[in-house]
Amino acid sequence: MTLIVQKYGGTSVGTLERIRAVAERVAAARAKGNDVVAVVSAMSGETNRLLGLGKELAKLPAEREMDSLVATGEQVSAALLAIALTELGVKARSLVGHQTRIFTDGVYTKARIRSIDVETFRATIADGIVPVVAGFQGVDQHGNITTLGRGGSDTTGVAIAAALKADVCEIYTDVEGMFTTDPNICKEAKKLDRITFEEMLELASLGAKVLQLRSVEIAMKYGIPIHVRSSFSDATGTLVGADDDSLESVVVTGVACDKNEVKVTVRDLPDKPGVVARVFGVLAEENVSVDMIIQSESRGGKADLTFTVTHTDLMKTKDVAERVSKEIGAGAVQIEDNVAKVSIVGAGMRSHAGVAAKMFRLLAEQKVNIQAITTSEIRVSCLIDKAHADQVVRSLHKGFGLG
Amino acid sequence: MTLIVQKYGGTSVGTLERIRAVAERVAAARAKGNDVVAVVSAMSGETNRLLGLGKELAKLPAEREMDSLVATGEQVSAALLAIALTELGVKARSLVGHQTRIFTDGVYTKARIRSIDVETFRATIADGIVPVVAGFQGVDQHGNITTLGRGGSDTTGVAIAAALKADVCEIYTDVEGMFTTDPNICKEAKKLDRITFEEMLELASLGAKVLQLRSVEIAMKYGIPIHVRSSFSDATGTLVGADDDSLESVVVTGVACDKNEVKVTVRDLPDKPGVVARVFGVLAEENVSVDMIIQSESRGGKADLTFTVTHTDLMKTKDVAERVSKEIGAGAVQIEDNVAKVSIVGAGMRSHAGVAAKMFRLLAEQKVNIQAITTSEIRVSCLIDKAHADQVVRSLHKGFGLG
Repeated sequence: MTLIVQKYGGTSVGTLERIRAVAERVAAARAKGNDVVAVVSAMSGETNRLLGLGKELAKLPAEREMDSLVATGEQVSAALLAIALTELGVKARSLVGHQTRIFTDGVYTKARIRSIDVETFRATIADGIVPVVAGFQGVDQHGNITTLGRGGSDTTGVAIAAALKADVCEIYTDVEGMFTTDPNICKEAKKLDRITFEEMLELASLGAKVLQLRSVEIAMKYGIPIHVRSSFSDATGTLVGADDDSLESVVVTGVACDKNEVKVTVRDLPDKPGVVARVFGVLAEENVSVDMIIQSESRGGKADLTFTVTHTDLMKTKDVAERVSKEIGAGAVQIEDNVAKVSIVGAGMRSHAGVAAKMFRLLAEQKVNIQAITTSEIRVSCLIDKAHADQVVRSLHKGFGLG
Repeated sequence: MTLIVQKYGGTSVGTLERIRAVAERVAAARAKGNDVVAVVSAMSGETNRLLGLGKELAKLPAEREMDSLVATGEQVSAALLAIALTELGVKARSLVGHQTRIFTDGVYTKARIRSIDVETFRATIADGIVPVVAGFQGVDQHGNITTLGRGGSDTTGVAIAAALKADVCEIYTDVEGMFTTDPNICKEAKKLDRITFEEMLELASLGAKVLQLRSVEIAMKYGIPIHVRSSFSDATGTLVGADDDSLESVVVTGVACDKNEVKVTVRDLPDKPGVVARVFGVLAEENVSVDMIIQSESRGGKADLTFTVTHTDLMKTKDVAERVSKEIGAGAVQIEDNVAKVSIVGAGMRSHAGVAAKMFRLLAEQKVNIQAITTSEIRVSCLIDKAHADQVVRSLHKGFGLG
């Protein structure tokens, strides 16, 4: 018996008509003799609507309450899908965090899954019932409702697939799969049939919003193949799996662009040991993920520290940076949000030299200034002026022959 | 230290502005040195919106899923009120069914509370935190989400007040208190300063939509005074409490009108033992509450059976009645929804004869036909044509000197 975990994103359950279509897809998979676990996101727009309500009441709304607030979005779509399935004659049962017993740590708004009660799922499936899981959420050890961060339903889906040793985790979205770059920016973008976990990991962390980063980490760790595909068609999408010899020749698989980062600069940091550690130590305590970091050379015993964070963490970061700056005798804190991070990703980079140099040359030809650089084994990222981002994506896409 | 349970209805938390006003009211009660537990309904309109979604997907949507669906309404308002309180510097914590450990039986859509974990509340209050409880819901012993029926947040409020031995349960609504009759129907209606639990019980069961019936039963059983008042003003509302000598002289306290009942007639029932018991037995199994019952005299071994149920139970009742009718060899099932139940209520009726006779005379003067009658010690109800309901309410209100 094949066990498939199907995760449906916000647009896939965005209307009652779409929920009916999803119910039919689940029913079809069952009719073929598969066991199915469905995982759903909130109806598209609902999470933002709920976040908006909370933010209108407080500048920094209590995070525990924000989690309890937004978790209702997935609870609603899970109940609705279970109703639609029952109407089709398929036994179904919606499950939220305290019922699936998806236990997380206590870090509100970006909790991490600690354990999943496999028995609840096994027993439900054995009774011929489709578990319809509210994605994005769990409970901590005290029963507080936690959420897994934006896009967390992907992580719910893959984590359940891993825990149940499912054959595949299908991620249903409103696009046909992963593309060589964002088709909205570059119309030459092409759908990829296969990519490796490592490439997906880099793309997921780079603002290619198809999959949440952590879901790919889990899939890679437990070897769960992911099939990213559209809920609006029956076409095969992109298979994300382990590395494959046939991929060796492709140097650059895709170009990603992340416009969701903000550049924070702390001026005139006293140039002595422990000061930088103090800044990032406090940010880590507040669960802020810092991406790129640049420190200027010291002049007169003072240096500037620049780093990037996501828009979501901006308010918290600003508070922390200003507090720490005062404490350590540094200067003003500056925020710049007119930046974008453009990246090239490809497993073949490991064995090919000169890829980064070619990227920098292509940027120079466009007369685009590079504000910061980060690299990994299979990725090169440059922070640039947001105004040039789309043009740069197109020129990299063409320059690396992806069209 | 005084402990006050404050329950806020849908219109009281209907907008973010209203939620802020509620937060200020809770903060003010705390500032006076009281301990407060807040209980909230869903924002007005939200429960109907959610029910509408479920009903669009299925004619008889799975009840377990409907409960999980609509319970999100209160979860949202509880989280929002907790955010608003925190913003005012009042420590607060929203709690849903599995967190308050309000355990119910497993009867979806109209569950009954079995137990409340007092320790959760005590500990939270002792920490200086205001528990903000999502009303209307609990969990059964298996962790399934259940709801307490329309208006169930009143029951949540009073049940918590009883469990914690609170000094008073304040029920905040959009009217000033209980009136001698519906002011929308009769502009001479007057606010009542006090009424007894028994009178409130009759009024609550008669479509005076201010309080859910069961909440009054619990308040009476545990002697918890209820203060029905408006969240839009600081005026004193109506105190509902134990019987009081000063009330003795009032024969009729109020006139109620319920337009939410439907008349169901099963034709040509075989006139033999056990047939009627079978009809109501199956309805009881399906958790349908039957109100008035009339059986016609037998003609040729056949009789007609007429009874009333609420609109909510109509679909289920029709299904059951048609099934049982076929099984026992009875005739057609007829539904009539152009009926209204008009009632007079008063604790003084116990010691005054002729009150019912006066009601029937007033109806006769209006040339209104009485289709069915039910009475209790302190109430007389008549089922009449819905078209005459408002006119009858006004004439009874005047006839019994309530203006």
